[in-house]
Amino acid sequence: MTTELLPAVPTDLTGPLAELAGELPGAVDPGFAAHEVTDRSRVDAPQGVLAVVRPADVAGVQTVLRWASRHRVPVVPRGAGTGLSGGAIGVAGGIVLSTERLDRVLEIAPADQVARVEPGVLGADLDAALAPLGLRYAPDPASWRTSSIGGNVATNAGGLRCAKYGVTRESVLALDVVLADGSLISTGHRSIKGVTGLDLVGLFTGSEGTLGVVVGITVRLRPRPVDEQTVATWFDSVDAAAEGLLALTAGAARPAVIELLDGPTLADIDAHSGTSLAQGGGALLLVQTDGHGARAEADEVEAALRGAGGRPRRLHGEDAEFHWELRRSGRGPLEDKLAVGEDVAVPLSRIGEFHREITRIGAVHGVSVRAVAHAGDGNFHPLLFADDVAGGAERLEAAADEVVATALRLGGTISGEHGIGTAKQRWLADELTPQVRALQAGIKAVFDPLGLLNPGKAL
Amino acid sequence: MTTELLPAVPTDLTGPLAELAGELPGAVDPGFAAHEVTDRSRVDAPQGVLAVVRPADVAGVQTVLRWASRHRVPVVPRGAGTGLSGGAIGVAGGIVLSTERLDRVLEIAPADQVARVEPGVLGADLDAALAPLGLRYAPDPASWRTSSIGGNVATNAGGLRCAKYGVTRESVLALDVVLADGSLISTGHRSIKGVTGLDLVGLFTGSEGTLGVVVGITVRLRPRPVDEQTVATWFDSVDAAAEGLLALTAGAARPAVIELLDGPTLADIDAHSGTSLAQGGGALLLVQTDGHGARAEADEVEAALRGAGGRPRRLHGEDAEFHWELRRSGRGPLEDKLAVGEDVAVPLSRIGEFHREITRIGAVHGVSVRAVAHAGDGNFHPLLFADDVAGGAERLEAAADEVVATALRLGGTISGEHGIGTAKQRWLADELTPQVRALQAGIKAVFDPLGLLNPGKAL
Repeated sequence: MTTELLPAVPTDLTGPLAELAGELPGAVDPGFAAHEVTDRSRVDAPQGVLAVVRPADVAGVQTVLRWASRHRVPVVPRGAGTGLSGGAIGVAGGIVLSTERLDRVLEIAPADQVARVEPGVLGADLDAALAPLGLRYAPDPASWRTSSIGGNVATNAGGLRCAKYGVTRESVLALDVVLADGSLISTGHRSIKGVTGLDLVGLFTGSEGTLGVVVGITVRLRPRPVDEQTVATWFDSVDAAAEGLLALTAGAARPAVIELLDGPTLADIDAHSGTSLAQGGGALLLVQTDGHGARAEADEVEAALRGAGGRPRRLHGEDAEFHWELRRSGRGPLEDKLAVGEDVAVPLSRIGEFHREITRIGAVHGVSVRAVAHAGDGNFHPLLFADDVAGGAERLEAAADEVVATALRLGGTISGEHGIGTAKQRWLADELTPQVRALQAGIKAVFDPLGLLNPGKAL
Repeated sequence: MTTELLPAVPTDLTGPLAELAGELPGAVDPGFAAHEVTDRSRVDAPQGVLAVVRPADVAGVQTVLRWASRHRVPVVPRGAGTGLSGGAIGVAGGIVLSTERLDRVLEIAPADQVARVEPGVLGADLDAALAPLGLRYAPDPASWRTSSIGGNVATNAGGLRCAKYGVTRESVLALDVVLADGSLISTGHRSIKGVTGLDLVGLFTGSEGTLGVVVGITVRLRPRPVDEQTVATWFDSVDAAAEGLLALTAGAARPAVIELLDGPTLADIDAHSGTSLAQGGGALLLVQTDGHGARAEADEVEAALRGAGGRPRRLHGEDAEFHWELRRSGRGPLEDKLAVGEDVAVPLSRIGEFHREITRIGAVHGVSVRAVAHAGDGNFHPLLFADDVAGGAERLEAAADEVVATALRLGGTISGEHGIGTAKQRWLADELTPQVRALQAGIKAVFDPLGLLNPGKAL
């Protein structure tokens, strides 16, 4: 946070921005760095962003939005900027509203199994507060150490554990939201259940900042499991691993996590982490069972995967944690490559076919492809990359188009958990009909009639 | 279904209804019985309903809604009529659109862990189709044998197992919906995950037929658990049982079901079922654990509840099933009493306090009160009843007002799982601010600009 170093009211501001700086001393920063108005997608940094505004509290967020409505200034809400779809990227003539200073855990109520947090709280910070109480907030995007819970709500983020515990939506009970006109509403309930009126909590979750700015989040907590067991199973190929997955899901086991890493991913991890995962085979399924039956469930997983031709191995303690960390962040940087990181989902039965298809697509377009998948959800993250040479970007784009079209053709979706942002806009019409998009635009207009909130994103 | 007996086109119809009967031979029934335009709430049967219309397929539903839009006729969608809030009750000058003939299980795809059903399929029918495959649709409202899945979607129905497996929303992946103008849209995805655009599936779920008529439902399936263990624990009082619940939830056990029955409920079941539950104590917690760790988890539950002063007993086989069935349907008819069956939710920590309060409220108003609760969710079903004498209805109503107000005061909600319908309209403004209600009305207008779908309900 750089605001401490700023003069309370920057002296070089004029017009509406000076007015806002006067209302919120220390919060308006026109001298931001480029990385503060982008995210982790490969979308280019925007030009013409007026300022990053970092209100310190809910009233400050309301002040910003009242000001924005008065002066018709677009507002891009932004959490920790770890998004991968360009949803938090600034727009010309607009401000980026950062929630980074709204970073308090407001309440942890173990007896109610709920916590209330401000949107800027990072997943890791909440987890640190919950661990001593034996509690857990289930959603665990791979970015959980660096992404904010407000951002997770904006994208309805998934993660590794959602095969068993669901995505962000399933852990959000209530939201406080500042609307485009600066008014503050509360929606949802502190009880675990509730069906009063239309489900606005669900509507805000995953809306990528287009309907309002979330300023308070009541989340459901769950007990930390008494035991976790990790089964690492190598297969000769992704096809064989996909068959293994079907053998597994045909049984009664219900693992918390089922991750698939293909051969090129294993080779990449080996190259950057000093491991030798690829020696084990052409694909790796990493499975975690948890709870009182973790051991028996892992036994069943091993038996199912062995029966399908896999070579399972039980991992323990630090060795298990090391492998999970490799999955989360063991891949190397792409350095001078052009790359597209995709996020699509397919029905569980189509995982093998989908991987065959993307391999074929890569070969056709002269693009390298490797993939990991939250296989229990059918959620694939193919990574496409090419040398930065003439025609590379075009080949990459053509391959990405085909990858996304393939997911749709197989009955899947163009975004499993990262959201649409700006990066996936060009495929939106392939999944949603004009009528469905018109309904979504109609809903947007109910909440934000001036169209100021994150314009051009998501919808 | 009585349509077989009707002439294809009733001869006594005139005007718009005759036109519809011509378009949908055998589907338009102006000679319906009163129970076909009401539900299981105690809301009075409506006057002036034009007809019950029972289209046989999706195209028929579209025909009905195109006709309704053309002639500005209100349409009340209706599943199996088991609702408890009056959401499916007909309105004067309108038709009731029954989905009972849309009763096909369209597809079961074990490898994808999904099924597609028409809205008129009963929960029990889907379960019968899934059981041989070792699969289960998790939501289990107590009415699961008689309620339709379309109706469950309309109310976002809960049930016993949602403490662990979530409510209906968490098992619905995609919906086909006929909008008020007769057009058909598909929303959602067949993959387990997906975040493309605003979450219309979540918005339709629980919207009580006010936004569209659901004609196709893609649900998520889960494996049937390998083991289930039942622990029945008697306590001296509901207060003691509430303390037991907190001791249980403070641990790592995560039961599938936690049901609370108070002393008067036990006495009522005994009177009608020949049991002697009330001899065990003033309150009963019925807990079910499931999965590979069911036994170990039940051991932990027993230890926690014994430590909190409870008297746990493990139930097996038919004995266990018998007790669960008593919970679902063992209570006696109220016969000549005036009664209100409530459905509110409170935070878990307030369960004991809430029960003390409703007991006090009953005493103040001279109204009998007994209650069961999905205690793992904080979802209470108090039953208030009084003799049908002068002033009885007024005392009942005053007591119900206080019960609902108490749930709100304790941080809860006016409807945990039954929906608002007509029966809970009078409390809606106590939970939702005028601004939130205006947003909901705005969304309603996007989907149903003529206001024809289930007017006067839910919102």
